[in-house]
Amino acid sequence: MFRDVAVIGCGMTRFGRRDDKTLMNLMIDSSHKAIQDANIEESDIDALLVANMLAEKLNHQTLIATALADQLGLHSASADRIENGTASGASAVRNACLAIASGAHDLVLVTGGEKMTCASSERITDIIATMNHPVEYMQGVSLPALAAMFARLYMRKYGVEQKHMAMVAVKNHSNALKNPYAHLRRRITLDEMLYAKDGEVKNPIVAEPLRLCDCCPVSDGAASVILCSAERARKFNDTPIVLAGFGQANDNLGVYQREDATILRSLREASRQAFNMAKLEPDDIDVAELHDAFTILEIAESEDSGFFKKGTGHRALEDGSTSIGGKLPINVSGGLKARGHPIGATGVAQIVELTWQLRGEAEARQVAGAEKAFSCNSGGFASNMVAFVMERSS
Amino acid sequence: MFRDVAVIGCGMTRFGRRDDKTLMNLMIDSSHKAIQDANIEESDIDALLVANMLAEKLNHQTLIATALADQLGLHSASADRIENGTASGASAVRNACLAIASGAHDLVLVTGGEKMTCASSERITDIIATMNHPVEYMQGVSLPALAAMFARLYMRKYGVEQKHMAMVAVKNHSNALKNPYAHLRRRITLDEMLYAKDGEVKNPIVAEPLRLCDCCPVSDGAASVILCSAERARKFNDTPIVLAGFGQANDNLGVYQREDATILRSLREASRQAFNMAKLEPDDIDVAELHDAFTILEIAESEDSGFFKKGTGHRALEDGSTSIGGKLPINVSGGLKARGHPIGATGVAQIVELTWQLRGEAEARQVAGAEKAFSCNSGGFASNMVAFVMERSS
Repeated sequence: MFRDVAVIGCGMTRFGRRDDKTLMNLMIDSSHKAIQDANIEESDIDALLVANMLAEKLNHQTLIATALADQLGLHSASADRIENGTASGASAVRNACLAIASGAHDLVLVTGGEKMTCASSERITDIIATMNHPVEYMQGVSLPALAAMFARLYMRKYGVEQKHMAMVAVKNHSNALKNPYAHLRRRITLDEMLYAKDGEVKNPIVAEPLRLCDCCPVSDGAASVILCSAERARKFNDTPIVLAGFGQANDNLGVYQREDATILRSLREASRQAFNMAKLEPDDIDVAELHDAFTILEIAESEDSGFFKKGTGHRALEDGSTSIGGKLPINVSGGLKARGHPIGATGVAQIVELTWQLRGEAEARQVAGAEKAFSCNSGGFASNMVAFVMERSS
Repeated sequence: MFRDVAVIGCGMTRFGRRDDKTLMNLMIDSSHKAIQDANIEESDIDALLVANMLAEKLNHQTLIATALADQLGLHSASADRIENGTASGASAVRNACLAIASGAHDLVLVTGGEKMTCASSERITDIIATMNHPVEYMQGVSLPALAAMFARLYMRKYGVEQKHMAMVAVKNHSNALKNPYAHLRRRITLDEMLYAKDGEVKNPIVAEPLRLCDCCPVSDGAASVILCSAERARKFNDTPIVLAGFGQANDNLGVYQREDATILRSLREASRQAFNMAKLEPDDIDVAELHDAFTILEIAESEDSGFFKKGTGHRALEDGSTSIGGKLPINVSGGLKARGHPIGATGVAQIVELTWQLRGEAEARQVAGAEKAFSCNSGGFASNMVAFVMERSS
């Protein structure tokens, strides 16, 4: 009954501070790249989904999906915007899968984009905190504050040390050096991460115990994919990549309401759904993109996705299992931490990176022989989680 | 291939100034009513779509779909918010149809809501204008200004007079008197509409030639529907209403870019798609809910939906064809004009009203024997249009 869906084209802009482009320019650029990559015409597209979180506030623009549709000349296509906080990108890809699986649409363009560097980080931190439970928001609890409290719980319960979090940043910065689309292309060392002192500009405290290098940057950028049914995919592209499974679930909005805040219940359920649908196990996965908005999250997500036993993610990191060349390379793109996190683009960029990996087109950061991939994109503090399992079609 | 989708439950709150409720309260209330009406449990729902346009700005809240999912206890369900400007409601219903047709979801809750009366009308007018083309926005062109220019073109080209626009308002106010959910339950007369003078508080000019009574009010409210596949629908509900056809299309975002601005190209394409899919003709329709944010729009839409020849909508109105008892009663709920227009709720409320009509549950405003219905919901100034054709399953 369910039609399989494949990625037949992808494109993205360089992430970073993009004073040279408006939000609309960025989204047009990545859309054009994906259209070209898929080897289709604009007029072939019959639905557009735009992932974006902040355009109302930062760009004073609503109805942005229609604005992009108009720029691309997609007048007979449907056009909708999905906002699902920081998981907007993966949500849009998931809704596009449903649109194709339904039989109502054949070729769907998903474009995620955000232009954030125009605002002060103070303002960005406040706006992003509007994802939180109102009770937490009203107490001034921002996302970094939640991540800091989460890190403290994690350190106490599972013996994670500050150096483990630092190792995530070091690994992901190192991966980003090989990614021409990444925002932070700068090698950092464990020493820099660990021994920076308070007041030292290099790695100041953001929310104890998190320092600047534990947090993803504020970025501009856009990413796009073209999806179609798996059975038609080969007509357009020699190496269609199948979105073999997906899942989405919620946790309590308030982290304070969760029974054990160290357990990412939304991710457990979303990845369970995705693996079930794909008829695969975590052990089958060759490469993963996780939502490392904060370094501690990569460790926790590597466990609740099912890759490592709860409380052992930091050990896997330590022994190199999650580095390129290890058992399960994680965030080879640089992740949110170093590729950057232009919010609406992030979930789409994960699918783009994994498509390149499964096609064998990831150049210097290619995971050799990667055939199966996993991604998770988190809305709020793991309040809403969207997971994908992807597979190179044989 | 395509699974038919049916409405098995619906509910809405009273529209109006709702100082007694937060946005979340309104959405919870309408969701509960729909769940009860469908005779299901919360835990049966496996996907939630929330339609909302303004929560970031007016309620300082993002990730609102997860917030509602959490309040309803829908932790294993997917939850996404759709923003498609003033067409957010119908867009969400349409995406829910795709989710069910895909086979990925069985029971989907769509809740649209908005809380707008907390802001000044000056601010609301500005925020709503963010749907416009940036070139128009930067010139200070608001939605009422676009509607006024549209009305002038329409008057010149088709001989529509100010009295015809007034007749839309008089009809829809009269319908709203029979709708306990309506915002403006006040009879107005043609004399009041036509002969009010500048400076007179009763019907002041908003944007020449439009007066206050030509414009929909700013409202709070929420509306919900529960959808499931048509083949399962009878398990839950004796009178499932089938969403037999739907369509969605765009026009140029800038009204200034359109070749003939009096032609609603997006509506022509969306209604063509919807009628094709339903295998029905405009002549088959017994009752319609159109997007009368401005009175002139009801006239234009009654033509571009295919009900009346272009340029004759005002004649049909004049001869009573669009009144209850006429050939095609339009906006029997009171429409946006008098039921009110809490933006995210509107497109969902149209589906709720038509479900009640097709079930024969619309009480004093029931269109006798209604079996087939049509709705259109407009994003921006007809920049994005979503149309539905609904049918009582036999």
